[in-house]
Amino acid sequence: MTADPDRSDLVVLGGGSGGYACALRAAELGLSVVLVEAAELGGTCLHRGCIPTKAWLHAAEVADAARHGSRFGIRSSLDGVDVPALRSYADGVVGRLHRGLGGLVRARGIEVVPAYGRLELVDGEPAVRAGDRLLRGDAVVVATGSRPRTLPGIEVDGERVLTSDHALRLDELPRRAVVLGGGVIGCEFASAWRSLGVEVTVVEALDRLLPAEQPESSAALQRAFGKRGIQLLLGQPVTGVRTTDGGVEVAVAGAAPVEADVLLVAVGRGPVTDDIGADEIGLALDRGFVAVDERLATSVPGVWAVGDVVAGLQLAHRGFGHGIFVAEEVAHRRGLAPAPTLAEESSLPRITYSDPEVASVGLTTAQAEERHGEVTTLRYDLAGNGRSQILQTSGFVQVVRVVDGPVVGVHMVGSRVGELVAEAQLVVGWEAWPQEVAALVHPHPTQSEALGEAHLALAGKPLHVHG
Amino acid sequence: MTADPDRSDLVVLGGGSGGYACALRAAELGLSVVLVEAAELGGTCLHRGCIPTKAWLHAAEVADAARHGSRFGIRSSLDGVDVPALRSYADGVVGRLHRGLGGLVRARGIEVVPAYGRLELVDGEPAVRAGDRLLRGDAVVVATGSRPRTLPGIEVDGERVLTSDHALRLDELPRRAVVLGGGVIGCEFASAWRSLGVEVTVVEALDRLLPAEQPESSAALQRAFGKRGIQLLLGQPVTGVRTTDGGVEVAVAGAAPVEADVLLVAVGRGPVTDDIGADEIGLALDRGFVAVDERLATSVPGVWAVGDVVAGLQLAHRGFGHGIFVAEEVAHRRGLAPAPTLAEESSLPRITYSDPEVASVGLTTAQAEERHGEVTTLRYDLAGNGRSQILQTSGFVQVVRVVDGPVVGVHMVGSRVGELVAEAQLVVGWEAWPQEVAALVHPHPTQSEALGEAHLALAGKPLHVHG
Repeated sequence: MTADPDRSDLVVLGGGSGGYACALRAAELGLSVVLVEAAELGGTCLHRGCIPTKAWLHAAEVADAARHGSRFGIRSSLDGVDVPALRSYADGVVGRLHRGLGGLVRARGIEVVPAYGRLELVDGEPAVRAGDRLLRGDAVVVATGSRPRTLPGIEVDGERVLTSDHALRLDELPRRAVVLGGGVIGCEFASAWRSLGVEVTVVEALDRLLPAEQPESSAALQRAFGKRGIQLLLGQPVTGVRTTDGGVEVAVAGAAPVEADVLLVAVGRGPVTDDIGADEIGLALDRGFVAVDERLATSVPGVWAVGDVVAGLQLAHRGFGHGIFVAEEVAHRRGLAPAPTLAEESSLPRITYSDPEVASVGLTTAQAEERHGEVTTLRYDLAGNGRSQILQTSGFVQVVRVVDGPVVGVHMVGSRVGELVAEAQLVVGWEAWPQEVAALVHPHPTQSEALGEAHLALAGKPLHVHG
Repeated sequence: MTADPDRSDLVVLGGGSGGYACALRAAELGLSVVLVEAAELGGTCLHRGCIPTKAWLHAAEVADAARHGSRFGIRSSLDGVDVPALRSYADGVVGRLHRGLGGLVRARGIEVVPAYGRLELVDGEPAVRAGDRLLRGDAVVVATGSRPRTLPGIEVDGERVLTSDHALRLDELPRRAVVLGGGVIGCEFASAWRSLGVEVTVVEALDRLLPAEQPESSAALQRAFGKRGIQLLLGQPVTGVRTTDGGVEVAVAGAAPVEADVLLVAVGRGPVTDDIGADEIGLALDRGFVAVDERLATSVPGVWAVGDVVAGLQLAHRGFGHGIFVAEEVAHRRGLAPAPTLAEESSLPRITYSDPEVASVGLTTAQAEERHGEVTTLRYDLAGNGRSQILQTSGFVQVVRVVDGPVVGVHMVGSRVGELVAEAQLVVGWEAWPQEVAALVHPHPTQSEALGEAHLALAGKPLHVHG
């Protein structure tokens, strides 16, 4: 749009979920876009997060199916895990998606600059320095993402003390592992490793797994993990980690030290803002995250931020949503698109892909009470759901509604419930009342019927609901 | 409600999905209810249909997981099928759900009469004769369901020539099977048996599997079945069946006769109306089904019909919907409930639980064009969906919308897509426009994202969509 070859409408710093979604949408809206990414397009989610971890978790599901075949009349056996083959399967999935993403980006005419980029001021205007290129843009988007955090006093060596990045690249499985952190990442690795035969202990300083979820969900997951032989040390901070000849020794408050071959540090992910030139352009940070307003604009005019680098839920689809929003916002300011609306954070569905899965959307009961006053909740046990009985999973669907008002939260535990949250998202996102859902007949026999039953009961017409 | 001990507000003839749902809802609304069932509460769906077949299909999935573990880095093996154990697993699921249903019916104060019931006129008023009881009711509901059909000239002997009822009670699996009929039941058995090691040939007189589904869905299923080694003889009617010493020989038009150990006759299910006293009370039938108006009232005042005995989709959840509707209709006529609305037949979700699954809701493209004129369709290939790549399934999500109008149909093929149809049902049932769905961010990485992507593309803002 200008004669300067290194000037474009939009410069995106970071090619992960938030960054590439922003670039794709902006290009679609007719903007010229440059995307700066030193590593691979796709970022954490595709290469070191969502996708490979879910591949490991699916392999874990396959292992459990083979292990427990006799429960279903199948003479099957599990003889071990071929870690290189598992990694090759995961890499294969990542590779296909990566090639697809590259094709999309090329097809939309987005220039990718494969270099490490830093923010700079040029003539008082924000730009991105990437290798020997100085990329100027009418708008700049910071999408530098996040990386695993560790705790003071715990040194990650990649051999005995790991982050999730290392855990996905192991050549063999540990015999015994300690997982430090009972959040999403910790629970997913604990679950996968246990299914693959590892003795696992999860240590969490707070008093429950998945502390951001509905308390009933945490309790159900804890019970299920307990039955699966995963040791849980909850409300017990780690006080020290020592590497030994054979592995690690983890000191835990109020318990005997735990010995293991490896320690996985899964205490969350921090923003990548330490070396992006934030100071140079005067970009305000807040505890390391890029500070933004309610429309994702930063303190520097013309600079936006999207995805994990913005404090909040660290989810790839939040990054997609952010990226699409900022692309439309920039286009809107040029009169190329209507003003977009940013999805409320609580409307984003959340899934932990452990066995059992934990999924939710909207508000917890406590949040709903705080925001709306009195609420009604209904919990439908999967024991009454035929499809869940066939899968031999236990758990529940819990729906939170405002009294004489819409559904504002859905919380679920059980195998495969992650896919059910899409329906729940429409219910919560569209502020439906239970009777509007109850008017539709869910297909039988599906797990989604449990959602239907909960809404039927909340609408005053329970079908398969006991007392 | 009256002194006559054998008079109640509602008499329901048949304790399957339609009948028991009607009884439960009516009791909830304060009506006195008698339910007549000669066999077990739960009917075909629970005992010989949905539930046990899905248990067999899940066992088949477990067998495939063990068989293909190496694809995922899992050293597993499949050493055979323990049919008695498989049946015991399926029976266990059925038994638990059956006990639950019995508890529900008791808890709502419904009297169950365990006898074969026939309609009768008493003082000009319809009633049900059941054993030595003559059950009079202000309303009578016919819920006698359906049973497997066969074809002229094919004698079902339960040993070599089977219906689905027999197939679920085999003591051992056949080595080779012919499945006559490529509808839902035929495809589900063909899929399960193939996974369990049986050589399967499906013979269908029409030119595609699942002829009621979107043609693209049939084509995808046929390709997948072909890859799985299921032989398909499509557009080729069976001309004769001969039992031999070793099994059966099935003559097929335009092909060599097919020899097998068993023939499964899966040519649909017919209504159970031959011995229910329809003539005695002057109940009009239509090709054997009970004729009803758009509010499920029969030709006899005070008599309604629900479920498979009413011509249309033979689905348990249609029975639930019918039963609830009639209970509310009867209560409404007494001023106990508002007038209910019966869900449109096309709004009912449909799932075939084969591998891959086929699921749909709303209209096919052809039906939508007929009803709405010009439509737009968008097909999103699961090759672009991360979760589907992890599951190593192929297929698609196809959305049909009216031009500048709502979504009127969703069609899907792929492993586990059956659970996605619940979200699609809300979209179609609530007449949503693509942009309303596109405003919400689907969770990553789920299969439901494929639905989200299709709606994003239809809303003019494709994300991960090629070309």
